[in-house]
Amino acid sequence: MAVQTVATTSDSTTVDLGPAAALSCRECGHRVPLGPVFACEECFGPLEIAYDFSAYDTEQLRRRIEAGPANIWRYAPLLPVPADVAEKPNINPGWTKLVKADNLARELGVTGGLYVKDDSGNPTHSFKDRVVAQALEAARAFGFTTLSCSSTGNLAGAVGAAAARAGFRSCVFIPHDLEQGKVVMAAVYGGELVGIEGNYDDVNRFCSELIGDPAGEGWGFVNVNLRPYYAEGSKTLAYEICEQLGWRLPDQIVIPIASGSQLTKIDKGLQELIKLGLVEDRPYRIFGAQAEGCSPVSTAFKAGHDVVRPQKPNTIAKSLAIGNPADGPYVLDIARRTGGAVEDVTDAEVVDAIKLLARTEGIFAETAGGVTVGVTRKLIEDGVLDPAKTTVVLNTGDGLKTLDAVAGTGLTATIRPTLDSFREAGLA
Amino acid sequence: MAVQTVATTSDSTTVDLGPAAALSCRECGHRVPLGPVFACEECFGPLEIAYDFSAYDTEQLRRRIEAGPANIWRYAPLLPVPADVAEKPNINPGWTKLVKADNLARELGVTGGLYVKDDSGNPTHSFKDRVVAQALEAARAFGFTTLSCSSTGNLAGAVGAAAARAGFRSCVFIPHDLEQGKVVMAAVYGGELVGIEGNYDDVNRFCSELIGDPAGEGWGFVNVNLRPYYAEGSKTLAYEICEQLGWRLPDQIVIPIASGSQLTKIDKGLQELIKLGLVEDRPYRIFGAQAEGCSPVSTAFKAGHDVVRPQKPNTIAKSLAIGNPADGPYVLDIARRTGGAVEDVTDAEVVDAIKLLARTEGIFAETAGGVTVGVTRKLIEDGVLDPAKTTVVLNTGDGLKTLDAVAGTGLTATIRPTLDSFREAGLA
Repeated sequence: MAVQTVATTSDSTTVDLGPAAALSCRECGHRVPLGPVFACEECFGPLEIAYDFSAYDTEQLRRRIEAGPANIWRYAPLLPVPADVAEKPNINPGWTKLVKADNLARELGVTGGLYVKDDSGNPTHSFKDRVVAQALEAARAFGFTTLSCSSTGNLAGAVGAAAARAGFRSCVFIPHDLEQGKVVMAAVYGGELVGIEGNYDDVNRFCSELIGDPAGEGWGFVNVNLRPYYAEGSKTLAYEICEQLGWRLPDQIVIPIASGSQLTKIDKGLQELIKLGLVEDRPYRIFGAQAEGCSPVSTAFKAGHDVVRPQKPNTIAKSLAIGNPADGPYVLDIARRTGGAVEDVTDAEVVDAIKLLARTEGIFAETAGGVTVGVTRKLIEDGVLDPAKTTVVLNTGDGLKTLDAVAGTGLTATIRPTLDSFREAGLA
Repeated sequence: MAVQTVATTSDSTTVDLGPAAALSCRECGHRVPLGPVFACEECFGPLEIAYDFSAYDTEQLRRRIEAGPANIWRYAPLLPVPADVAEKPNINPGWTKLVKADNLARELGVTGGLYVKDDSGNPTHSFKDRVVAQALEAARAFGFTTLSCSSTGNLAGAVGAAAARAGFRSCVFIPHDLEQGKVVMAAVYGGELVGIEGNYDDVNRFCSELIGDPAGEGWGFVNVNLRPYYAEGSKTLAYEICEQLGWRLPDQIVIPIASGSQLTKIDKGLQELIKLGLVEDRPYRIFGAQAEGCSPVSTAFKAGHDVVRPQKPNTIAKSLAIGNPADGPYVLDIARRTGGAVEDVTDAEVVDAIKLLARTEGIFAETAGGVTVGVTRKLIEDGVLDPAKTTVVLNTGDGLKTLDAVAGTGLTATIRPTLDSFREAGLA
């Protein structure tokens, strides 16, 4: 991927992104001013946001959060956004339900409390709204006027919706042969939706070229040049889970892995809450979940490797199908450091888990949610996950977007409209 | 439809449904004890809930509501549910976003403040979750063990999900030839899903027979024998809108009409808030929205009739396609009493309005949302709706459920993955 490290559209030292102080390289610690850049000029490591939280008083901060809006902007003091972010037009995701899943707990033998963090309640029904909402604020701060991304579906819809609300032009790039349903979901918001003759890798490569070209000037690619800001959106999952548990860390969290960014940012969020004194500092374990058909991180974890070997994805869990996950090594670190694990399940287990969650809790999850629930079940059966501990499982998307996965589900009976026919079918 | 007026499964005088005191006939005022009945034994008029709110202090009630959960149970003191309802397993819908729609306002020329109440944020992504959650609590109070309904889609999913969470058996009846997608959405929750060889009217007739038969004992049909409780769920839309406006009545509300129940209950909710002193008593106007292909109430309103003549529905707005709306006459009363109106739009206008809402606000509405937005536009153009007044438009469902309506939406361009191809397409 081409790397651009210099801000081009504004003087990045004057942007107001609240507590965000600079960009800092995750590998070498080199700091640069806030700007639309994503790779370290020294070592090409990934840049992430460095914050200044030094002025915060714990109890004041807690009260300020609790008095905030019922969306991610309640955590504005901990995000790279201006203090008045809630007043600006945005899609305002988050504050989704943390469902106490007692029926599922019974089926899985969990006695310590099982919760599903259900991100299907977001505006476009996936966790992507969280990250796009952040990227949008960065785009605004840097003076961009077009919001863009490469996508295979969920992200395209989130970008289209957020851009529409905020009055940005959007131009989203997708493989030209996506399923019609996904195209419609992305196109309905009225932005430019460009099909690229090629696969997702070709789309990505093209976007990197466009960023380096004058034609891409003024464009914020949420998952490329705005990636450091975008990725921070996943921290809000950690904040919400802890606040919804009564400002308490869960003992165990099961998180799906695509690029691995979400898992690493949830860990970052938990660490921040500890440092800020908003939760008690005690151990928690982080578990990563993959589909067997795209399990590079799980494979490395089980083999005891530090390096993640790329795979060619082949799974129904398409929103997780990243064969070369950028944050894979960081995920391995976190799983090992916290005493967690990374596990995978087959597509058949994914489908079973979708049905299990729907049947027990009335939550219809995307395939990614089937992956986390399926992995949770497997980890319990294998004695890896402790059923006596408080456990949170993420559902990051909505079953309506991956209907094909459960297309075999159907009528339990067909009868004539008479009581006799009803009785004959054994339904009485 | 067969009418059953006697409670059969429990001693209805001992049920605890909070402030609900009795059932009262909307036509003749005859009162009967709370029970699973829906028609007056004296005059066959519809029964509705009579409350005892006499003990409430306005400011105490306001504080209690504001301290409540971020779902409809914050209004438990005003609903037919026990005080501890939030502790019981239910689907917990509501507290959906009231979106300040400034872009849409600009396009429509609304200067007084335009809001979209977006019920696609509910657990199964339609307002049906509100009414089903109520019916579930009534079913629990009456000792029912099976939750049932007749449905053409949305309601089936809401009942299936709620029953799964609450540990009820569910048995849902649908026409046997529904689209596969809708069948999957209803079947995934694992309850009985029975296809009836016939149309929706046949399904309804069969359900009424089943209620009167021993085979139906212990069954709560949410939209038949639990209808008085079920219908109250729509009041929560009125409560939320006013609370989200800062305990203020909107000047104008545009509401879709299927049976008309939702509109009448929103009016009831607004009247209650006025009587309880939670909002200032000042005029508001209620507008009803229909699709031209199923516009019996709009037709009657325009003709100045009190009687609604049934129509055979033919519209893409299938969730509103009730040709003989039970509450039609009440809707006419309310529209006329409040100085509102009932209007209809063509299917083409519905599609245009779906795209307009998506393009301006990033909200992808079901066809019913297209009907309300389309009617709002028409009412403004015709000078009926006052653009200088605060206006709330309801979106009652999610565009993901009616993708076919905008199936024509697609790629704006297809290019090769090169900058040259990008420039040739005029995208730079």
